[in-house]
Amino acid sequence: MQPHIYVINPNSTQRVTDGIDAAMAPLRMAGGPQISCLSLPSGPAGIQTQHDVESVTLPLAMLARSLEEKAGAFVIACFSDPGLYAVREAVARPVLGIMECGILTSLTLGQRFGVIAILDGSIPRHLRAYGAMGVSQRLAGELAIGLNVTELSQFDRTLERMVHTGKRLRDEKGADVIVMGCAGMAVYRDPLQDALGIPVVEPSQAAVAMAIGRVQMNWHRA
Amino acid sequence: MQPHIYVINPNSTQRVTDGIDAAMAPLRMAGGPQISCLSLPSGPAGIQTQHDVESVTLPLAMLARSLEEKAGAFVIACFSDPGLYAVREAVARPVLGIMECGILTSLTLGQRFGVIAILDGSIPRHLRAYGAMGVSQRLAGELAIGLNVTELSQFDRTLERMVHTGKRLRDEKGADVIVMGCAGMAVYRDPLQDALGIPVVEPSQAAVAMAIGRVQMNWHRA
Amino acid sequence: MQPHIYVINPNSTQRVTDGIDAAMAPLRMAGGPQISCLSLPSGPAGIQTQHDVESVTLPLAMLARSLEEKAGAFVIACFSDPGLYAVREAVARPVLGIMECGILTSLTLGQRFGVIAILDGSIPRHLRAYGAMGVSQRLAGELAIGLNVTELSQFDRTLERMVHTGKRLRDEKGADVIVMGCAGMAVYRDPLQDALGIPVVEPSQAAVAMAIGRVQMNWHRA
Amino acid sequence: MQPHIYVINPNSTQRVTDGIDAAMAPLRMAGGPQISCLSLPSGPAGIQTQHDVESVTLPLAMLARSLEEKAGAFVIACFSDPGLYAVREAVARPVLGIMECGILTSLTLGQRFGVIAILDGSIPRHLRAYGAMGVSQRLAGELAIGLNVTELSQFDRTLERMVHTGKRLRDEKGADVIVMGCAGMAVYRDPLQDALGIPVVEPSQAAVAMAIGRVQMNWHRA
Amino acid sequence: MQPHIYVINPNSTQRVTDGIDAAMAPLRMAGGPQISCLSLPSGPAGIQTQHDVESVTLPLAMLARSLEEKAGAFVIACFSDPGLYAVREAVARPVLGIMECGILTSLTLGQRFGVIAILDGSIPRHLRAYGAMGVSQRLAGELAIGLNVTELSQFDRTLERMVHTGKRLRDEKGADVIVMGCAGMAVYRDPLQDALGIPVVEPSQAAVAMAIGRVQMNWHRA
Amino acid sequence: MQPHIYVINPNSTQRVTDGIDAAMAPLRMAGGPQISCLSLPSGPAGIQTQHDVESVTLPLAMLARSLEEKAGAFVIACFSDPGLYAVREAVARPVLGIMECGILTSLTLGQRFGVIAILDGSIPRHLRAYGAMGVSQRLAGELAIGLNVTELSQFDRTLERMVHTGKRLRDEKGADVIVMGCAGMAVYRDPLQDALGIPVVEPSQAAVAMAIGRVQMNWHRA
Repeated sequence: MQPHIYVINPNSTQRVTDGIDAAMAPLRMAGGPQISCLSLPSGPAGIQTQHDVESVTLPLAMLARSLEEKAGAFVIACFSDPGLYAVREAVARPVLGIMECGILTSLTLGQRFGVIAILDGSIPRHLRAYGAMGVSQRLAGELAIGLNVTELSQFDRTLERMVHTGKRLRDEKGADVIVMGCAGMAVYRDPLQDALGIPVVEPSQAAVAMAIGRVQMNWHRA
Repeated sequence: MQPHIYVINPNSTQRVTDGIDAAMAPLRMAGGPQISCLSLPSGPAGIQTQHDVESVTLPLAMLARSLEEKAGAFVIACFSDPGLYAVREAVARPVLGIMECGILTSLTLGQRFGVIAILDGSIPRHLRAYGAMGVSQRLAGELAIGLNVTELSQFDRTLERMVHTGKRLRDEKGADVIVMGCAGMAVYRDPLQDALGIPVVEPSQAAVAMAIGRVQMNWHRA
Repeated sequence: MQPHIYVINPNSTQRVTDGIDAAMAPLRMAGGPQISCLSLPSGPAGIQTQHDVESVTLPLAMLARSLEEKAGAFVIACFSDPGLYAVREAVARPVLGIMECGILTSLTLGQRFGVIAILDGSIPRHLRAYGAMGVSQRLAGELAIGLNVTELSQFDRTLERMVHTGKRLRDEKGADVIVMGCAGMAVYRDPLQDALGIPVVEPSQAAVAMAIGRVQMNWHRA
Repeated sequence: MQPHIYVINPNSTQRVTDGIDAAMAPLRMAGGPQISCLSLPSGPAGIQTQHDVESVTLPLAMLARSLEEKAGAFVIACFSDPGLYAVREAVARPVLGIMECGILTSLTLGQRFGVIAILDGSIPRHLRAYGAMGVSQRLAGELAIGLNVTELSQFDRTLERMVHTGKRLRDEKGADVIVMGCAGMAVYRDPLQDALGIPVVEPSQAAVAMAIGRVQMNWHRA
Repeated sequence: MQPHIYVINPNSTQRVTDGIDAAMAPLRMAGGPQISCLSLPSGPAGIQTQHDVESVTLPLAMLARSLEEKAGAFVIACFSDPGLYAVREAVARPVLGIMECGILTSLTLGQRFGVIAILDGSIPRHLRAYGAMGVSQRLAGELAIGLNVTELSQFDRTLERMVHTGKRLRDEKGADVIVMGCAGMAVYRDPLQDALGIPVVEPSQAAVAMAIGRVQMNWHRA
Repeated sequence: MQPHIYVINPNSTQRVTDGIDAAMAPLRMAGGPQISCLSLPSGPAGIQTQHDVESVTLPLAMLARSLEEKAGAFVIACFSDPGLYAVREAVARPVLGIMECGILTSLTLGQRFGVIAILDGSIPRHLRAYGAMGVSQRLAGELAIGLNVTELSQFDRTLERMVHTGKRLRDEKGADVIVMGCAGMAVYRDPLQDALGIPVVEPSQAAVAMAIGRVQMNWHRA
């Protein structure tokens, strides 16, 4: 039996987890790792505040440790990469965050990445993370659509705002690749890319794509 | 009655808190804020792992909120600045981390700062923080002495290692100012500076010094 | 008797010195250092050109040396930090510039700082200083209000322009904290912060706040 | 029939291509893309000079275009990423370079990456590439083993030098993850990682792992 | 007889070469190097795509080698600096690119440089080069006028777009010096500078000016 | 009659001026600008302290203004570039500093520049300047030989220390081009380059070479 990639949505909104799961379809291969998407039952409805971030770090580490026997890798499916380093410390298997992988993937698709956030309040946290990653020089800009995680499900309004924001990033800030800054945006990737005409990265896909290779190579902490 | 600056040591090792408290003596002024040093009772013996960091973030926020009525400012007295952004979000009063303030203070005392860490495992976490702060260009280097928080109390061995490491930072890495990378090192500041002949920053002092001004100006979230 | 923090306004416009002095009120504490604000008698009406900057460097150093016996620290109260390194070399007591301290303080209050300058001509000089400090990555932008030091005293016009410029920095450039780029703007801090809804740093206060700690710790050149 | 990932070794040394091919084994999955490793027949024995780099760029683009009908993605398997942007322009399918992917992958495995180059002359070219990628801040250092591509096949000498160089990167330069700076080093990954005790990235594996996801998502130029 | 500076226009549009030649007039001195402007006969009409760039690298190296006996230095007169490192490797005499020299010269004329490109598609390539040069922090922005190399000869339309774009770089992006991002723009330097009121760098002049000194010093590879 | 390039040595040590003058020989061309080397009579024996730097800024501006009628350009021939921006403001003709031009020139000769300083105390000042220039990423390192300006004239000892220091920059810090960090080192350029086998930049030559072009183009402030 194949090892699992556990894609853990740290919030408890099942619709978000379902959206991620749907986005995983093309990455499921007969001979490849199983890709299992889970919600963190104790998580908040969305990771929007710093309190939300902190509240899930150790539960994520505990959940990961409980799954480690069957795991080939873990993906933390929230664009704040909550608990990334705690989970890495807790398990020997590879742990990837969707923010870091979404950004790193975008670096191979354009020269200046733009990020569409859900809320203004998330942006400073993301900027700190880009600084910690040492990739700020590649950032064109980040702008928010002003909708929270649960509001994301209203399709037309959300898409309209994402297209508007993506165009600002492209035309005013000079972005030539867009990263969607929330795991709950997966369903909007294709229409957004069609509207913008530049590559759009869905970060959960980016992270799982990178995780697949590590599972196949049986990677674990040196 | 003057408002308090609550200097919260997120670990439960009272000797560390006592050392911080002693270092505060010169910063206590008749007409200035009261400076109260607390341990976090639920904290680990030392903040050494990422798990240690995560385990104290929300307890710190809760403790800060419980103290807010009498508080003028808060200082998180651990060089990993655990929970810095969670505590900032939780209270309207200023919250400062000793890492950020130790580094920022060093930027006014030399052109390239060196950091003396306790353990090798702390260094990547610190490097991420310097990146998030956007000050990596000023970093000469960071080296560890290989002693954990509780071992720091063995005076002669610790000082000898700090002097040795400080000289490497000065002579091999080009540091012209040193930041002590642990709240538990406060007692070593003076002999270390004497031995190295370049400024040495004790980060809890650096943070409280900055906090005093904010309290006096009655600063709170805009 | 307490040592003095000498806050030296390198220009000779007494109204600017008076404005700084008024801004110091909350930082004067029983048991704390005395805070004495001086104009440089030989200084120009405002430090606006590079010639203005150069003309005060050695006079500042001489003045500082003449005051050193009673000094605990010195603050150079001009946002070009003129003569900062010359004064540091001249005296053994700590010397802080209001630009460096204003910027460093802002780094603890937001992720991207915006600066309101008086004149366009000051901006390249400031940008060089941020580069020398190694903090350019945190800069959102700097914009000028187009008024010289003496024109700053016309309250309504100045405040209106500062609010307008601050909003551009916040909304177009993404600043989440503002640094006032002239010592002569001190009186506008509170209404500006009220209008913008994000923290506004008055740099003379920022520098003196940092200086207080050094005086209390009896800091001098290692 | 599955689309191919064409892994093109721009040199004509078949042993290098065979080594890459062997390293691909774990990444071949039922249901996943086919992974086909090719030499560039017109390529030099090794890509060691700038002339070598330039000589393969358009042949790589032509070869890629000739294969595009059956291709899901292309990987350029030389650590100078020769012709990366020319091939990207020539075909609509994703094109990845092993240098960029090796580096990006290392950013998820450590905080400071070290690179083991074959020859001193390659290092400035690599440094330019890291600068263009905007990731220089994460570089611990790069050192060469002083062996050319064909000399790499002498196992014991090569491994001994790689271990020696890796230890210098780890101990003197502060690297906590190593990237092997030549496609011809694939066979040394496991013993090198065992000797160093920190993660070692084989860049062809890193690139193909990232390519698999793009093929599965049927990615092509927007 | 004086050695030559060979200014090689890698495209075959003679009008571009003629424009460069005319711009060289003031740099021709009786006792100085001869300045000879050549087209690359095999070059495309303009260097606009990555294929264009790659197609000239080795021909440039060969041409340079064939001219080396009479050469004091070489200048590659295309703003993509195609083949810069290949030509450097091929000959012992100094080789300068007009992009690098245009940018470096601008760094002595303003604090933030803006670049006027011909086409949007050139911008990511230029941004990679600025990153490789390590000077991205000084970039205010780069914007294109949307005209290809041959369209540049329509004077009024081109000048009008260059002025419009230069004003955007100056007023929206904060540039205080402009670099013209194509060798074919030489004739527009003076009217553009008059219209903008800030320095405008013609990059072929910048490169030849730097080359003259090397020829006079008989510089060759150490 | 040709306009002059005034190369002003801000110190009053005539031997230094004579050494610069000798280094100018190859840059004097029939038909080119006259190159006139002057000492600043009021200058100190060497620019070694910050006080030395400040003491010459306005005298340099005054001297330049007095010479402007016959000037085509000015070069400030001290590696601290004292008064660079004051002189630029004072005259409409181009003003170049030997530090900035030495560094910029080195960027075309290698990927990582090393600087040989005279004294340890100069290094922080230089590092601030590299930061202001935005080129710190290209710095391999800077090391001092521990000799002051007047001691530089003792040939054998000075050369021996420069070779030793240059080798450390090359072998330990990874420099592939060296910039001599004092105008008084001009005479050592050739033997140093011979000993190191990598390019060595004499900064006064670098600056005058760049100035020649500006004079020929009749450049003045826009």
